[in-house]
Amino acid sequence: MAKIVDMEVLDIRFPTSRELDGSDAMNPDPDYSAAYVVLHADSGPDGYGLAFTIGRGNDVQAAAIRALAPHVVGREVPADAAALGELSRRLIGDSQFRWLGPEKGVAHMAIGAIVNAAWDLAARRADLPVWEFAARMTPEELVSLVDFRYLSDALTEQEALDILRAAEPGRAERAARVRAEGYRAYSTSPGWLGYSDAKLVRLAGQAVADGFDMIKLKVGGSVEDDVRRMKLARETVGPDVRIAVDANQRWDVAAAIGWMTALAPYDPYWIEEPTSPDDVLGHAAIAKALAPIRVATGEHVQNRVVFKQLLQAGAISVLQLDAARVGGLNENLAILLLAAKFGVPVCPHAGGVGLCELVRHLSLFDYVAVSGSDTDRSIEWVDHLHEHFTDPAVVRDGRYLAPTKPGFSARMHDATLRRFRFPDGPEWTENEQ
Amino acid sequence: MAKIVDMEVLDIRFPTSRELDGSDAMNPDPDYSAAYVVLHADSGPDGYGLAFTIGRGNDVQAAAIRALAPHVVGREVPADAAALGELSRRLIGDSQFRWLGPEKGVAHMAIGAIVNAAWDLAARRADLPVWEFAARMTPEELVSLVDFRYLSDALTEQEALDILRAAEPGRAERAARVRAEGYRAYSTSPGWLGYSDAKLVRLAGQAVADGFDMIKLKVGGSVEDDVRRMKLARETVGPDVRIAVDANQRWDVAAAIGWMTALAPYDPYWIEEPTSPDDVLGHAAIAKALAPIRVATGEHVQNRVVFKQLLQAGAISVLQLDAARVGGLNENLAILLLAAKFGVPVCPHAGGVGLCELVRHLSLFDYVAVSGSDTDRSIEWVDHLHEHFTDPAVVRDGRYLAPTKPGFSARMHDATLRRFRFPDGPEWTENEQ
Repeated sequence: MAKIVDMEVLDIRFPTSRELDGSDAMNPDPDYSAAYVVLHADSGPDGYGLAFTIGRGNDVQAAAIRALAPHVVGREVPADAAALGELSRRLIGDSQFRWLGPEKGVAHMAIGAIVNAAWDLAARRADLPVWEFAARMTPEELVSLVDFRYLSDALTEQEALDILRAAEPGRAERAARVRAEGYRAYSTSPGWLGYSDAKLVRLAGQAVADGFDMIKLKVGGSVEDDVRRMKLARETVGPDVRIAVDANQRWDVAAAIGWMTALAPYDPYWIEEPTSPDDVLGHAAIAKALAPIRVATGEHVQNRVVFKQLLQAGAISVLQLDAARVGGLNENLAILLLAAKFGVPVCPHAGGVGLCELVRHLSLFDYVAVSGSDTDRSIEWVDHLHEHFTDPAVVRDGRYLAPTKPGFSARMHDATLRRFRFPDGPEWTENEQ
Repeated sequence: MAKIVDMEVLDIRFPTSRELDGSDAMNPDPDYSAAYVVLHADSGPDGYGLAFTIGRGNDVQAAAIRALAPHVVGREVPADAAALGELSRRLIGDSQFRWLGPEKGVAHMAIGAIVNAAWDLAARRADLPVWEFAARMTPEELVSLVDFRYLSDALTEQEALDILRAAEPGRAERAARVRAEGYRAYSTSPGWLGYSDAKLVRLAGQAVADGFDMIKLKVGGSVEDDVRRMKLARETVGPDVRIAVDANQRWDVAAAIGWMTALAPYDPYWIEEPTSPDDVLGHAAIAKALAPIRVATGEHVQNRVVFKQLLQAGAISVLQLDAARVGGLNENLAILLLAAKFGVPVCPHAGGVGLCELVRHLSLFDYVAVSGSDTDRSIEWVDHLHEHFTDPAVVRDGRYLAPTKPGFSARMHDATLRRFRFPDGPEWTENEQ
């Protein structure tokens, strides 16, 4: 039996704020960062995972991951659903550590990074990409991965099993299809708030030329600017390309409704993060007032309990799970099952660093083994920082290609780890201001 | 102008798990701990604050506080509402750090510890206990402390001002009354889940003899045990003493309703934390099913946005704010204003280490300057670890005495800091297992 003999955690930061890439109304100057985890095994491949942050505090995130090392180091390398379920339960079940959340924020993202690294490790040993590794598990195995605590008023274990069994017959056919055709992407690259109008128009046109049928703009700085930018974007892409907008939590309920009413003439497809990610009732009020404009959220939704309520309250019609915000693949499976139960499409949050790499596995797995559908579903795409990964996300003609290499694709190149390590990597020591 | 020249952060842990003090259904073996902050000034008194945790992860909490030092060190010592509002906004407004929450968990508790230490510092310089220092501010000053973002659908700035102005005329009279009579307490000491029936009966009887008119029992381990313990407690205290029960988040919605129905014949006053603190809709369903048994929660409620929803949904009829979970006194003022707006009594969570010391200031301030009422309000009391504080909480005849020393009462004795510092204090090095 192979063992995990060490857990290495690195603070890796990219100076993205220098170019205003990633700028939005709430996050004017992010330095995309990863608290990067390596599970070292005594034989065979290692496992890689990460928590995504946007700069300051990435050291705190790294400390939280390190604090969980005693639950991992010295244990057997997980190989199957039973071991991966046990690991997740052990991490979430640490009653002292749980006080720091519970199941939210830094402490929960730490659990997610480790759980995802363990999936990477298990899938590498099985010589499969994670989406295929998970999609080969039986419905019973998949259900055993899920923590149903706090979910039973919306989704029982039996209902989850029924959903997974209903998807079982078509698995092989859908897997073949995504291997051949990939999975729809949408592009956020044109719409960062720090970009000029000319850059917005150029990149929006480029996105359509590149095969995307949906783009996304950041909004929430000033309503006049947003109306002008939305109008320019609509004129550029024409009536048939979807334009989603993203307020990154800038508004209160009434402001969200007023602002979006001003943008409505330009046919926004969804409004993303109109207000606090914690505000289930606020999202529900906004959704009711703005229909048929869809309300979307998820990248900051802390756990399955909040997603459950967003679905119960009819507050969202697009669910944007994030690969690295919640407790790893296990909890994202719970969230996929909830979405399937409520019939709400999942369009994952991506971008940042490593999120495109990770989350495509979840959408492919969802399509093959959970919801069985790709209708109105797409994965966010930002063409940025992929060169740092050994198995980078690739989008062609507006579609993510299905990853074929073993694992969860979070591994970065050694040269990247050396260069961008904070604060002592040359990228930081050579550019001090 | 005095300056803050250093921020010291200590990892202080008490080995409470050795005696099963503090044991409940979710937290079987807590080691009550504090990530302890000292704001060192270049002249005059220093400021003291803490984040409370229950052991493992207290180092992560300390790291999160340290990460915020650049926002504090080198700045002027805050002296008034303007400075305390500015500090809170600066800490919450760090857009990179915000990603770690937003406004929840480790990152938010770190902000709370610093904000509360700043209040301690300001009140010491004003030579007043914090409750009096805050209760002397004008309604306009108090409103300037509050972050109304995400609140305006439930509480506007004008409504907050109206609440505070309505309480203004009676301030002096109520302040005199609490100085003379203190503030009602209830006792949790009898009810820890690890205690024997005999100890439960003895401590419940003792609580009544000591003047308490309400006690609290932990529940959620086994329904048979809980029915037996509740029956014993009711027989011991008689029909007129309130018995609250606390499930510490053990149940799903249906389980909470079923379990409490079994305890209903013994007249539980409230059920506390029946399910996930994130589950607004779950609490609302439980409240509806169990009325007239009250539903209470708050010690793990992450911020004002979740409290807002609990009130909007009619999910709680007792609000249990915690002095050290949210973003400090500023956010707790927002929460007190929300409770006042909805007419829900605040009965703060306390216990742990330092929470009784801190939170009494909030209840006294609420009574004097916000809600103006003490009806159905009381502060939790656990007679434990107070000897470590220089201005310990004191309860006589079932009532908290009003603190009279300057500050927020979080300061620990130097000998305590030396002895209980983790992992190198003698309490830990001399008792290794």
